[in-house]
Amino acid sequence: MPTVYPCVPGHEIVGRVINVGSATTKFKPGDLAAVGCMVDSDRTCSECQAGLEQFCRNATFTYNFPDQHLGGVTYGGYSDNIVVDERFVLRVPSNLDLAGAAPLLCAGITTYSPMRHWGVTRGKKVGVVGLGGLGHMAVKFARALGAHVVVFTTSPNKIEDALRLGADDVVVSRHADEMKKHVGSFDFILDAVSADHDITAYIELLRRDGNITLVGAPEKPLSVPAFSLIFGRRSLSGSPIGGIAETQEMLDFCGKHNITADVEVIPIQKVNEAYDRLLKSDVKYRFSIDMASLQSK
Amino acid sequence: MPTVYPCVPGHEIVGRVINVGSATTKFKPGDLAAVGCMVDSDRTCSECQAGLEQFCRNATFTYNFPDQHLGGVTYGGYSDNIVVDERFVLRVPSNLDLAGAAPLLCAGITTYSPMRHWGVTRGKKVGVVGLGGLGHMAVKFARALGAHVVVFTTSPNKIEDALRLGADDVVVSRHADEMKKHVGSFDFILDAVSADHDITAYIELLRRDGNITLVGAPEKPLSVPAFSLIFGRRSLSGSPIGGIAETQEMLDFCGKHNITADVEVIPIQKVNEAYDRLLKSDVKYRFSIDMASLQSK
Repeated sequence: MPTVYPCVPGHEIVGRVINVGSATTKFKPGDLAAVGCMVDSDRTCSECQAGLEQFCRNATFTYNFPDQHLGGVTYGGYSDNIVVDERFVLRVPSNLDLAGAAPLLCAGITTYSPMRHWGVTRGKKVGVVGLGGLGHMAVKFARALGAHVVVFTTSPNKIEDALRLGADDVVVSRHADEMKKHVGSFDFILDAVSADHDITAYIELLRRDGNITLVGAPEKPLSVPAFSLIFGRRSLSGSPIGGIAETQEMLDFCGKHNITADVEVIPIQKVNEAYDRLLKSDVKYRFSIDMASLQSK
Repeated sequence: MPTVYPCVPGHEIVGRVINVGSATTKFKPGDLAAVGCMVDSDRTCSECQAGLEQFCRNATFTYNFPDQHLGGVTYGGYSDNIVVDERFVLRVPSNLDLAGAAPLLCAGITTYSPMRHWGVTRGKKVGVVGLGGLGHMAVKFARALGAHVVVFTTSPNKIEDALRLGADDVVVSRHADEMKKHVGSFDFILDAVSADHDITAYIELLRRDGNITLVGAPEKPLSVPAFSLIFGRRSLSGSPIGGIAETQEMLDFCGKHNITADVEVIPIQKVNEAYDRLLKSDVKYRFSIDMASLQSK
């Protein structure tokens, strides 16, 4: 029985291949494998042809999405096995801790993809707003890509952890004087906050042609003054996960740089408790469920 | 006495050179010349070195800005002559109507620059929101760059003019069904509206990786739902004028394509009346003041 590690909400799945179909070429039984947010797409549209299946209008998402093959909805990783077309299955570098690798499939690719898209490289100054499941991955990636990394957090008690994760500097965003020091200096900021917050304060931190990308989605619309974008020709954008090819690139990058998420492994029996703790941000930084625990009664 | 055509508010200036200093190499008396929004910058910062003087923190703007040489403030083009360092003076192609060329120095470069920056070329679908002084220039440039141009206006009575200016299609933005037809289809949208408006409706019209750039500045902050940017990896940005080199490029482009602004030429004595009409959008599409009228009493 394979060990499967799905992370909330069941679309960050890692385990070992049990069996393969006769036409399968990429995997054999026993291989490490991962499944992310998508299990299918139409494969013919311009987005799929461009390797950007995340934008395919006919994509099938892994969790709670209409299942075209079986009817009903997809159930993701809350099970001891899952059947997926190899085209949507990723290879996992063998040096990675499996429980820590699972969150790479959503938190990982969601933060890696916009950094690659907006050109985060050595010498760039990169901000990460919010140190949670996504933010802590963003810090690791920005650091590994060679950037100067500054973490913005509302919690002074996260400073130590931010530095441990690879930040060069940490700013407590409630301190206006600390924020002011960084005005006009960032090439790129990844905003991983899903609570309402003042986006303008971060737009002002961008240098000319700088970009801030949202990967968290606050419930209320953001309030954006036009002049904050006009002065400095700045841009505000958003980004969802990444395509299959880029997800594999991200996993290979993690293998090379030995990057995994910081996780707390729990048995499935604790999933409701974990959910309650998640709502209180009481997790560093992702829960990973050991699905072998399904066998326990 | 030269003819000088400054447009409201006096930073779109075209005329003939009266005299030059001994170190001047680019101009001689009698040459057509233009001055835009800037008359100086520090010339040493990274922005100036990059030819992006519009972002220089020490730029001197042409109108109502502290004048480092004479004290007081700059007065722009509301005069029969102006003294400017040749580095901030542009050449005007001789085939252009002078009164119509003046608005190129602000309305022209403000719309040309973001189109070049965001890659408007043949085959792209480009939207222009608002058909005023800036918008009507945007239509001309997008058309000349080879794009498929769609104008968005709240006024059905502007449809005919939009088509005359070069639009391939016109959408009355109050008609939801007309807007819906264009969802997810634009590569680039230039938003030239300075009144409050629903930016989300336009963000939704962008295709994957599409950009909407603000060149108008509504007084109130824009309301931007994160998901409208996340789905489609879209971006919202702003842009101010352009650098000196790009302004010259734009003027040369106008010479090649015979592009000028549609103007109503007025004597200086009618400037207050023109201002009142401007507030009511009663101008097609820019007032150009014939400064020879200063001599009339």
